[in-house]
Amino acid sequence: MGNNFSKLDLEAMSLAIDLSKKGQTKVSPNPMVGAVIVKNFKIIASGYHREFGSDHAEVDAIKNADESLVGASIYVSLEPCNHYGKTPPCTKAILDSGITRVICAVLDPNPKAQGGLDYLRAEGIECQSGLLSKEAIEVNKVFFINQIKKRPKISVKLAQTLNGKIARKDGTSKWITGDKSRFEVHKMRSLHKAILVGNTTLIEDNPELNVRHLKGDDPIIIVIDKTAKLDRNLKIFKSKKVFYYSCIKRLDFLKNIEQITIAKNSNYTVIWKLVLQDLYSKGIDSLFVEGGKEVSSFLLKENLIDEFYLFFGMKYFASNGKDGLFLEKDKEFNLLETKALGDSLMLRGDFGCLQELLKSLEK
Amino acid sequence: MGNNFSKLDLEAMSLAIDLSKKGQTKVSPNPMVGAVIVKNFKIIASGYHREFGSDHAEVDAIKNADESLVGASIYVSLEPCNHYGKTPPCTKAILDSGITRVICAVLDPNPKAQGGLDYLRAEGIECQSGLLSKEAIEVNKVFFINQIKKRPKISVKLAQTLNGKIARKDGTSKWITGDKSRFEVHKMRSLHKAILVGNTTLIEDNPELNVRHLKGDDPIIIVIDKTAKLDRNLKIFKSKKVFYYSCIKRLDFLKNIEQITIAKNSNYTVIWKLVLQDLYSKGIDSLFVEGGKEVSSFLLKENLIDEFYLFFGMKYFASNGKDGLFLEKDKEFNLLETKALGDSLMLRGDFGCLQELLKSLEK
Repeated sequence: MGNNFSKLDLEAMSLAIDLSKKGQTKVSPNPMVGAVIVKNFKIIASGYHREFGSDHAEVDAIKNADESLVGASIYVSLEPCNHYGKTPPCTKAILDSGITRVICAVLDPNPKAQGGLDYLRAEGIECQSGLLSKEAIEVNKVFFINQIKKRPKISVKLAQTLNGKIARKDGTSKWITGDKSRFEVHKMRSLHKAILVGNTTLIEDNPELNVRHLKGDDPIIIVIDKTAKLDRNLKIFKSKKVFYYSCIKRLDFLKNIEQITIAKNSNYTVIWKLVLQDLYSKGIDSLFVEGGKEVSSFLLKENLIDEFYLFFGMKYFASNGKDGLFLEKDKEFNLLETKALGDSLMLRGDFGCLQELLKSLEK
Repeated sequence: MGNNFSKLDLEAMSLAIDLSKKGQTKVSPNPMVGAVIVKNFKIIASGYHREFGSDHAEVDAIKNADESLVGASIYVSLEPCNHYGKTPPCTKAILDSGITRVICAVLDPNPKAQGGLDYLRAEGIECQSGLLSKEAIEVNKVFFINQIKKRPKISVKLAQTLNGKIARKDGTSKWITGDKSRFEVHKMRSLHKAILVGNTTLIEDNPELNVRHLKGDDPIIIVIDKTAKLDRNLKIFKSKKVFYYSCIKRLDFLKNIEQITIAKNSNYTVIWKLVLQDLYSKGIDSLFVEGGKEVSSFLLKENLIDEFYLFFGMKYFASNGKDGLFLEKDKEFNLLETKALGDSLMLRGDFGCLQELLKSLEK
C-alpha cells in the first residue's frame, strides 16, 4: 500500500489480471490468477492458472521464460501461495528461479495459502502489494467473498421504471425491459451456481428460472418457502436441480427434490443465515437473486447484497404503481458498470462490498 | 419517404448535417443548414449557413464549387427555401447552377419558406426528402418546435435518486448529484434563452439561476408567481433579466423587472398557455425548466415537455422520501442520449416530441 508504482508496473499488472480471466469457469474453486515477468524493463514471460490442478500462474510464467530470471520481477494478480496443495508452493518456485522482486495486486484471503509475501520477504525478496487491487478483486469477487464472508456471493437483480416502480397498481409489470435485457438476465443466470427466489414471486409469476436464450448451464434453483405454500404445478418443480427450504413441513409431492427444514418460528434473518451456511457447505459459491421487492429489500437491509443489477425500462408507470426496494435509511450506490441493452439500461454496482473486501485485505 | 438511399447519399447528408452545426448560436432565428454537392460519385463542394443574413447553405456550397455543376446532386439538411427573404430563393440558385437532383433531410415547416421541393419538381428537377430526417430535426429542434407549435421549445430537468426520490422526507436533497452534473446544468442554462421556475422552488431553494461554472450568457429568468407570494430578498431579483408573471397584483419592490398580469382565477393550463404565447411573442425560443415536481408533472400531463433531462444520483433515499414526477398514467420515454457525469448519470430523451415533429413533416 502507498507504494509508488511506475507505468511499466501498471502495464505488467494489467496484463497479469487480463491473463487471469482466461481461467474463468475452469479453475473453480481456485481463484483465477495471472502472472507476468519483467527483466531489464521488458516483459519477457507470462502465464496463468489454466485449470483446476494445473500449474499456478507463477510457475506457468517461470516455465514460459526463455532466459535466466536472475534479477527479474514477477507481477501476480494474487499473493503467491505458500503451501503444498495440488502443486508445490509458488514461493519455492519463485525463490528457485532467481527472481528478486515480487509485486502482487492483492493478498490471499485463504488462511491456508496466505503468508507468501511474508515468507519471501524473510528470504530477502523485495515484495509489494496493492497494485490494481480493486481490479484484481473484481475478477475474483466470488472467491474473495467466499473466503472472507464464508458464504456464497449474492447478486441481486431488479427491473424498474424510471420512477422506481416494479409493477403497476394492478400488479402487472410486463414489459418493463425488453428482449436484450432478458437475454442479459439469462446470461447472468448461467454465470451463477444457483438462483434464489421467494415464494411470492413463484406464486405470482410462476417463472421457469432456466437459461433459455443462450447456451449455458441451468443453475440450481433455491426456493425459500417459509410457510410451505407452494403448489405442485409450479414450473420450477420440473427442474431436477431444486433445493427447497421451509420452516413447516416437507411437501410430499416433491419426490426428487432436496428438502431442508429450518427450525420453526425462525425469523427471516435466522433463516437466511442458515440457508446461506447450508448452501455454502453444499458448494454453492454464487447466488443470483431474482426475488422481487421483499427479498431484495431484506438483503439490502442486512447488508447481504454483494452486487446489484438494476435494470431501467425506458418508461414511467403511473404514480400509484408499486415501488421497488424498501429502505428505512439512505444508501449510497457504487456504480461499477453501465450497459445499454436496447431500450433498457443496466447499472451494475454495489453498496460497499468492493470497498469492504479491499479494506479487509489491506495490511 | 420510403426512398432507397445509397451509402454515398447517407455520407453526403451526414456531412451536410454536421456542417450545419457550425452555424450554432450565429444564425438564430434562422435554422442551421448545411449542404453538400456530389458529382460523378464524388463530393465536390460543401457549405453552410454561417450567420444570420449571410448566404444560405445551398448558395454557399454552389459558390464553393470549382467545376460545372451540370448533372450534380445537392444534399441539404433542410428543404431549399422558395422565397425572397434576406437573400434570393435557394431554388433559383439551384436551377441556375445546372444541378439536376435535390435531396433534403426534412421539409421546411415555415409556411413562408416551404414549397421549394414542389417548385423544383415542377421545373423538372429530381427531388427526394426524408434522408436522416430524425438527425436533421434533432439539430434544429428549437426551430422546428417554434415553427410547428408556435411556442418556445421546453426542456425540463429533474434530478432524482435511483428509487425516484427528489428529496428526503424532511425536504433536503443535497446532494443528489455531483459537481459534473451541476456543471452540465449550467451549460444547459447557457444554451437556453430563458429559465422558468415556479414560486415553490424559489421560496424553498432561493437559487441564483445564473451561469456560474463556465463562460456563457445568463438566461432570462421567468417567474410564475400566481398568488404573488415572493419576497424581495430572493437572489433572482438581483438579475436584471427577469419576466415576472402573476395573477394577482404587481409587486411594488420590483422596479426594473417586467411584470405581466394574467387574468385572475385562471387555471394553471390557461396561465401556461398565456405565458408561453407571451414569451414566444417576446422572442424567447427556448425555455429551460428547473421547476421541481409540480411544474414538471404539470408539463408532462399537458404534453408540454419537448426534451427531458433526467439526472440520476448514485444513491437511494429512504422510502419515505419525496417522489419525483407525478403521473396519472403510464408514459413511454424515448432515450436519445446517456451521459456519465462523474458519479451521476444523465438520460436525455422525450415523451414523443421528436416522433411528433417527424410525423408532422412527412408528406
